Amino acid sequence: MLQLQLIPKTEFDRVSAAGVDRDAALALLADMCRLNTLVAIKRAGSGHLGSSFSALDLFVHLLFEALNTAELGWDHPDRDVFFSSKGHDVPGLYATLFALGVIPREKLLALRRLGGLDGHPDVRVPGIEANSGSLGMGISKGRGIAWGKWSLGLGGRVVVMTGDGELQEGQNWEALQAAAHDKLSRLTVVVDRNELQSDKPTEQIVALGSLDAKLDAFGWHVVSCDGHDHAALREAFAELRGVDDRPQALIAQTIKGKGVSFMERSAALAEGGGFYRWHAGAPGDDDFERAAAELVGRIDEQLATLELDVLQVEPVEPVEPPSREPAASLEAEPASGSGAPMQAKVSDEYVVEAYGEALVELGAEHDHLVVLDADLASDCRIRVFELTYPDRFVECGIAEQDMVSTAAGLARQGFLPVVNSFAAFLASRANEQIYNQVSEGTKVVYALHYAGLIPAGPGKSHQSLRDVSLLAALPSMTIVQPGNAAETSALLRWAVEEAEENVAIRLAIGPSPRAIELPDAEVAPGRGSLLRDGDDGLLLAYGPVLLHEALAASELLAERGIGLAVANMPWLNRIDGDWLSGTVAPYRRVFVLEDHAPVGALGDALRRELGGSPVTVFGVEGWPACGTPAEALRFHGLDGASIADRIEDAIARQA
Amino acid sequence: MLQLQLIPKTEFDRVSAAGVDRDAALALLADMCRLNTLVAIKRAGSGHLGSSFSALDLFVHLLFEALNTAELGWDHPDRDVFFSSKGHDVPGLYATLFALGVIPREKLLALRRLGGLDGHPDVRVPGIEANSGSLGMGISKGRGIAWGKWSLGLGGRVVVMTGDGELQEGQNWEALQAAAHDKLSRLTVVVDRNELQSDKPTEQIVALGSLDAKLDAFGWHVVSCDGHDHAALREAFAELRGVDDRPQALIAQTIKGKGVSFMERSAALAEGGGFYRWHAGAPGDDDFERAAAELVGRIDEQLATLELDVLQVEPVEPVEPPSREPAASLEAEPASGSGAPMQAKVSDEYVVEAYGEALVELGAEHDHLVVLDADLASDCRIRVFELTYPDRFVECGIAEQDMVSTAAGLARQGFLPVVNSFAAFLASRANEQIYNQVSEGTKVVYALHYAGLIPAGPGKSHQSLRDVSLLAALPSMTIVQPGNAAETSALLRWAVEEAEENVAIRLAIGPSPRAIELPDAEVAPGRGSLLRDGDDGLLLAYGPVLLHEALAASELLAERGIGLAVANMPWLNRIDGDWLSGTVAPYRRVFVLEDHAPVGALGDALRRELGGSPVTVFGVEGWPACGTPAEALRFHGLDGASIADRIEDAIARQA
Repeated sequence: MLQLQLIPKTEFDRVSAAGVDRDAALALLADMCRLNTLVAIKRAGSGHLGSSFSALDLFVHLLFEALNTAELGWDHPDRDVFFSSKGHDVPGLYATLFALGVIPREKLLALRRLGGLDGHPDVRVPGIEANSGSLGMGISKGRGIAWGKWSLGLGGRVVVMTGDGELQEGQNWEALQAAAHDKLSRLTVVVDRNELQSDKPTEQIVALGSLDAKLDAFGWHVVSCDGHDHAALREAFAELRGVDDRPQALIAQTIKGKGVSFMERSAALAEGGGFYRWHAGAPGDDDFERAAAELVGRIDEQLATLELDVLQVEPVEPVEPPSREPAASLEAEPASGSGAPMQAKVSDEYVVEAYGEALVELGAEHDHLVVLDADLASDCRIRVFELTYPDRFVECGIAEQDMVSTAAGLARQGFLPVVNSFAAFLASRANEQIYNQVSEGTKVVYALHYAGLIPAGPGKSHQSLRDVSLLAALPSMTIVQPGNAAETSALLRWAVEEAEENVAIRLAIGPSPRAIELPDAEVAPGRGSLLRDGDDGLLLAYGPVLLHEALAASELLAERGIGLAVANMPWLNRIDGDWLSGTVAPYRRVFVLEDHAPVGALGDALRRELGGSPVTVFGVEGWPACGTPAEALRFHGLDGASIADRIEDAIARQA
Repeated sequence: MLQLQLIPKTEFDRVSAAGVDRDAALALLADMCRLNTLVAIKRAGSGHLGSSFSALDLFVHLLFEALNTAELGWDHPDRDVFFSSKGHDVPGLYATLFALGVIPREKLLALRRLGGLDGHPDVRVPGIEANSGSLGMGISKGRGIAWGKWSLGLGGRVVVMTGDGELQEGQNWEALQAAAHDKLSRLTVVVDRNELQSDKPTEQIVALGSLDAKLDAFGWHVVSCDGHDHAALREAFAELRGVDDRPQALIAQTIKGKGVSFMERSAALAEGGGFYRWHAGAPGDDDFERAAAELVGRIDEQLATLELDVLQVEPVEPVEPPSREPAASLEAEPASGSGAPMQAKVSDEYVVEAYGEALVELGAEHDHLVVLDADLASDCRIRVFELTYPDRFVECGIAEQDMVSTAAGLARQGFLPVVNSFAAFLASRANEQIYNQVSEGTKVVYALHYAGLIPAGPGKSHQSLRDVSLLAALPSMTIVQPGNAAETSALLRWAVEEAEENVAIRLAIGPSPRAIELPDAEVAPGRGSLLRDGDDGLLLAYGPVLLHEALAASELLAERGIGLAVANMPWLNRIDGDWLSGTVAPYRRVFVLEDHAPVGALGDALRRELGGSPVTVFGVEGWPACGTPAEALRFHGLDGASIADRIEDAIARQA
């Protein structure tokens, strides 16, 4: 088994205190953090290497040198406040905080695990100043913090890091103009200008053009420099500190994947045929070893140049392969946006792949079908459509609101737009735009990707447990979630060819824990289908992840002599009255398993229709847990074993 | 009674065909449209005069001269597509479409009435190309339409008008950069640069700075000219038509209120002590007559200069004063954002005024309370707080997402932010930002103004019937709506001083139909209070508007020998179990009256808790009707008389 090695904090102390050339030491510390970042991500099985590496010299320069935070401590009111708005670079920040002694070793080695470190920043982690991961909010938060420091007469500056692709999000420009209007001279934005977003160059997705000119026109003092050159960074931050009449922006020219030759922008793009594969996901064993060896080599070179002893590392036990985990639900393949980990699977089925294939088929049959993307074409499996029908693919960049209203305009021109993003972003950030589109009486299909609790590694910014509630009160919106590949194709075809309303189709992003057999995929709006018989109660579920847990629960209960019927109910806000009275109502006990909060989804819809019969809902209560699928499902009592126990208890109480 | 007069279409035909100097004729046609706009708004009792007048030369120049739309017709695929993104200037657009024969006289005279013309643009009205009114979506839609025309090989350009204050909305900048990236040379944006937003100069709210430089930096071809000078407009549009490599923007320098001396920007600001009172709302009789006389005078002058006969107008019967309307619910006073009409009231109570007063009191007691505004300080009654505590008032402009994340930053600095906007915008557009703030474990109070169906004049972009459903699935969010002034003060104080969760407080914007007596305002979370006894059923309601209708229904049913108990239930997603089992459960029949869609609000929360007992919900089904309160309530079957009938039927069916 692969032997992982971590650089202990004592080594960072040694280098930092060595009294050698400071800029050379900072560059060395950054490479040492890169190695620990690589190890943490490899151990987690997922995470974002590319932007952690592009940002690492900035993290180190800010926290080891330019800011007072490490010196004053993260609870001091006069501290400089630093956080990253893009958030997916947090493994690099964690490694830097570990080097400073803020985050302990056992936490760094529990990245994306329950009780460890969240996949995206959360203020409950020491050293983390803001929750991020859903893009574009950071400058606004920095504005609020800077305003607060001014109002309270506190010391300290506020430094917010953003991505360059992230600047496509409109909220940034709201915040930029407001902060300039307020003359918040203690607010600094550092743009990690690594020129790559999810999987393509920013200039190809939606060009930023002259970022200097834009920021200057918005009233900011702008400086640009090499984001990996500590002497240049020293000079740049010195200039920014001298500006007292307006907020400032540093455009840090960086290289995505910096520090590992084959992960660096140009080499990686060439190898990937124009696509960048190191945005998210852990490297395989061979790639890991090549990368680690390269980093260790250069670290030792730098130590030698500085006439310091060679690097001392500590062995780290790897985690057990997830395939040995008790729960059956497993995580997704590398998802560029979600950074979900690569893990063994119990099934080869991905409903999202069936979605992508069906979309291409439907594109051949329907000239008026257009597909819109918000820089998640790989995760949403619409790349094949993009390559097959480039003239009917509209790239919108990381700008969900613009995407939805653009779709509204296309629909007014007679097109059928199919709009793609993660459910957590699309249903939420573009909610008012969806309402406005629907109000025009046109039809749009919304593909809500990465819906539900799993994968749980990316954390609460990415897990979508509210999307059904966000769309259910709309007139003319049918919300569905397919349970297997065949149902995905059938429901998408129905949405495109037959549905008279707008349709939101929720899709799991990961592999199906098992390929579930469904009755012949005849689409019957509002009607579910019985997957298992049982006389003691009926459990309704939807989607491959929780349908699997529902079946597992029924199988376990059968062994205990309890007959739990299981039905697949893909229609989350439309229920056929005959099916309800014929199939559901006869059961004395009806249970619903929600891959959603217990509020606002299928359970509520059932209660509205059943008018009186009790319905027991098991959903994701509170904040979704971050961890492996097994950890998250068990934490929420939604794994098969827990559900079996909860239902057995409920039946006992009712008996 | 005031005698209103309308200029008939024949007069527009006469001027347009007179063969006089075209630019002089266009200026004259614009003034004629201004007079008809004034009449329509006076008759409606509400509407936006200021920006209709600033935009009218542009409407006339585009539709009478620069575009092919009137010639080809609004159904022609090769037509130029024009619409206004800000939408509240639609009375001016309606008057222009009337002059062109697209909108009939009876419709123009039924502005903001059921079956008439919506208070904001709706595509169901002839000549209206896009739904707007919620700001910032227009350029994105124009992008979609232009992309569609290009893709289909159709002729025609796309011209989108925006406000200047509207450009604070971040979605505009998403769309501007995407359209430039796509090189959509058939897309033109016309900025109605009247320098005023809801009630203050744009430079005071959030300065636009150099708009030319911003648009240029975003890759657009920019031209600027006097938006009331038709020769200059002719030249500007000619230049824009020649640009074939990028989208174009015309910054039209205009005067808000143009055409009526005392409504024009400078004079009105001077008279209003820095505030502009003609953004929304109908003028009183005296102001109307002064304005009409001034317009008629200048129209006749221009006719004389062009050697044309004097103006012929037709008398128009005014509507009955609304105080004579059958239903008791009445509309709000002039609301700068909502443009709700001035009408007689049956009560002097405004819960929103109680909110504003309580906020100032709480500000005196709590140094850490800060108030955030998104350019609706007058409507939200927070102007007094702004003037009393200028250092604890954060103006964010029309940028709800930035406002919420700024509040998140302030909360992280130990402040208690109270965030204000209309419910339709705040709960929806900033939904993901609210989720992110709540996820940081801080506390913010969200004031959801103009919640519910009434006033119904502004139409579906402003009426908020989904906000409870949009927040109910959040962990740690209590949603309340007070029923009278005392309960408003008490709930706000509870939210600020006692609540451990985030609180969303829904507020009616209009006058209370009656000042409802509530039991002593002791705040008891999760517990409602009985307002009327009755043995045949219990009706739960909330908010001054529908509590009044609930009481009216109970009073009507009492006359028919049916005892309907009525309870005020201000807690929309938190229900105390003891109160439920003690007060609600004993009733065989439980009814809920929602000032919300029937999905996702109090009814669903009750069903979750009651676990079995049937609950009948009466809510706003489908799209909210536009009209007077009486018309809208009756249309949805939510006025007292309709509710009485519906409950009598329900009881009869169950008997």
